[in-house]
Amino acid sequence: MASKFITFLSDFGYTDNFVGTCHGVIKSIAPEVEIIDLCHGIRRHDIRTGALILANALPYMPGSVILGVVDPGVGTGRRPLAIRTAQGRFLVGPDNGLLSLAAVELGGAEAAVELACSAYSLPQVCKTFEGRDLFSPVAAHLAQGVRLEQLGAPVPVDDLVRIELPPPVIRDGEIAATVIYIDRFGNVQLNLSRDQLAAAPGSDLVVSHGEESWRVPFVSAFGDVDPEELLVMEDSYHNISFAVNRGDAARMFQIQVGDEIRFRASS
Amino acid sequence: MASKFITFLSDFGYTDNFVGTCHGVIKSIAPEVEIIDLCHGIRRHDIRTGALILANALPYMPGSVILGVVDPGVGTGRRPLAIRTAQGRFLVGPDNGLLSLAAVELGGAEAAVELACSAYSLPQVCKTFEGRDLFSPVAAHLAQGVRLEQLGAPVPVDDLVRIELPPPVIRDGEIAATVIYIDRFGNVQLNLSRDQLAAAPGSDLVVSHGEESWRVPFVSAFGDVDPEELLVMEDSYHNISFAVNRGDAARMFQIQVGDEIRFRASS
Amino acid sequence: MASKFITFLSDFGYTDNFVGTCHGVIKSIAPEVEIIDLCHGIRRHDIRTGALILANALPYMPGSVILGVVDPGVGTGRRPLAIRTAQGRFLVGPDNGLLSLAAVELGGAEAAVELACSAYSLPQVCKTFEGRDLFSPVAAHLAQGVRLEQLGAPVPVDDLVRIELPPPVIRDGEIAATVIYIDRFGNVQLNLSRDQLAAAPGSDLVVSHGEESWRVPFVSAFGDVDPEELLVMEDSYHNISFAVNRGDAARMFQIQVGDEIRFRASS
Repeated sequence: MASKFITFLSDFGYTDNFVGTCHGVIKSIAPEVEIIDLCHGIRRHDIRTGALILANALPYMPGSVILGVVDPGVGTGRRPLAIRTAQGRFLVGPDNGLLSLAAVELGGAEAAVELACSAYSLPQVCKTFEGRDLFSPVAAHLAQGVRLEQLGAPVPVDDLVRIELPPPVIRDGEIAATVIYIDRFGNVQLNLSRDQLAAAPGSDLVVSHGEESWRVPFVSAFGDVDPEELLVMEDSYHNISFAVNRGDAARMFQIQVGDEIRFRASS
Repeated sequence: MASKFITFLSDFGYTDNFVGTCHGVIKSIAPEVEIIDLCHGIRRHDIRTGALILANALPYMPGSVILGVVDPGVGTGRRPLAIRTAQGRFLVGPDNGLLSLAAVELGGAEAAVELACSAYSLPQVCKTFEGRDLFSPVAAHLAQGVRLEQLGAPVPVDDLVRIELPPPVIRDGEIAATVIYIDRFGNVQLNLSRDQLAAAPGSDLVVSHGEESWRVPFVSAFGDVDPEELLVMEDSYHNISFAVNRGDAARMFQIQVGDEIRFRASS
Repeated sequence: MASKFITFLSDFGYTDNFVGTCHGVIKSIAPEVEIIDLCHGIRRHDIRTGALILANALPYMPGSVILGVVDPGVGTGRRPLAIRTAQGRFLVGPDNGLLSLAAVELGGAEAAVELACSAYSLPQVCKTFEGRDLFSPVAAHLAQGVRLEQLGAPVPVDDLVRIELPPPVIRDGEIAATVIYIDRFGNVQLNLSRDQLAAAPGSDLVVSHGEESWRVPFVSAFGDVDPEELLVMEDSYHNISFAVNRGDAARMFQIQVGDEIRFRASS
């Protein structure tokens, strides 16, 4: 079952030729396949952000093959993987958790193989650039209809490395949630759903970060508050976000991924 | 009348998956359409630069659909638009002036509609990411031949928001022009045409910025002066530019968009 | 002999519309041709890095047309070129050495022409943006099967500008090699092959930069040493590299392109 599209995410950046070379490898094998570059600007080695982006974006992406390379352990014992999900899509990349949230989003991993050097990799697989020599060729062959089982030995799906996102906790009448993502605009995304927050749109919240606290309205769009004003809203991926209309909340308050943000109803 | 191409410009940057997700949405609707990424590195919320780039570049772009998203007012009262120009091309984006210079360049707006959530948007339109949920699907459907009138209620084209670029003024024997764009190389583009400057190639000009003045030759290529030397020339979009051969004029003289640069003939 | 692909490299960056406009020009001429963006993040005017990337990556790229634009001398006397290599591939760009290492990699230049304004350029060729007006159209026409000889007057291939990389030298029992490339991850690539280094994997080396020296193992993958530890290895382009596992060697030791790094066997 061939796929017209490969979705590609990495931390390769835009100043080297890593991304372009992987495109070349894929197109040499599968000239008719189209590559959709989801993002290559992930911070170096930031597996968790890569995993979150894949999980968030995949519902919007066509085609059945997804290639993800954020791989600080390249060339070491970590397994190179291809996974088939319950929805019949394929995830290709290192077994370091990068693919784990996407697998859940796509119905769960149904089967997995440990990729081997084979007729479906480049003839020489360099241990420092498996993105080029192993993962890209495998993605191309999967898009052309090669079966998962042809790519390597099976791995029990329960053995795959998983990323766990810290769940929000209720403490002293507050909900404490973890910052999981900060976008280009400085919007602060939390691992917190609207149901968990349990606040009504239009109500006010007290939002705390470290020793700072602000009274912030819970709204449905940036423009519901004046420019430079704080807001809390459900963002476009159904997470609760803390932001500043036309401003940069993360920079303004020096918020980083992993920080804790606390919410309580305003009295 | 279908289009093989969609030209896409935004301020989404390259560190998030905003651009890639819009590609996914477009390709899910219109798998055969090809997206040409004009630029996604526009400074955040810089509507005017986005408008200038669209107007400058569109004469070089094939296909009839142009998607532009620089949208600080997303989710507020500003109208989401699709415009048909006199040349039969379509512009999709927010009604904040972003599309206005391009519309003029393409013969003027002939008809416009205010986009509504419909069969031509995604089923749920999130007020924080209309680029993904509204503008991208509409561009895809236009490229597949959906008619403008099917996309929403008509808006009088005279009501659309316009960007006005400050015209050069003559004052005390000088022409004072406004910096409208600074490129990666630090070249300083002015809202000034060669006719308005009325200088002969090969002649010298006195160029002033704030309290600084320089005697600068009016030439036709960077290499007509020595490295590190100043020059004035007509640039590749027929605007007068002030530059330094193999140097960065904007950084060297701390020139910013919106600054005034003055020119007079050298005596 | 037409080509489905054009590989494109430049120093145009991602904040302007230079790359997108060249795509538009190519697609207007050759709508069926596919452009593979190898890299546009080359440091401004860094001809040598552009040349190295082209030479390294081309063996992985499909199609016969390669477009390279790193062109500090645009609009001056430097020749605009198209080259046919012994392998039947075409290189298009300025005659400043950018294409020279790729030509060698592809079997050597077999024929070259100096591009002229013609039916195969845009009607007006602006001296400040030949990438758009001359090189892109020529690449598009070559991809459509136009013959090299139709594009301009022949140039003897021995007259083309070449880049020479400084060879390693043996001095006082040490091999001194030059840093030719530093990637996003801070890995330091040297103009030194494994044969020239003549060290056995698993052995230790004394590596010196300026007055600093370190004892470093020669390994085959980043993960063969602990995180934050130094290593020397053969990289994915068969050059010897000096790196830090999960760290940034170039930043840590302030190493720059052009610096000398010395190696000797550890006693």
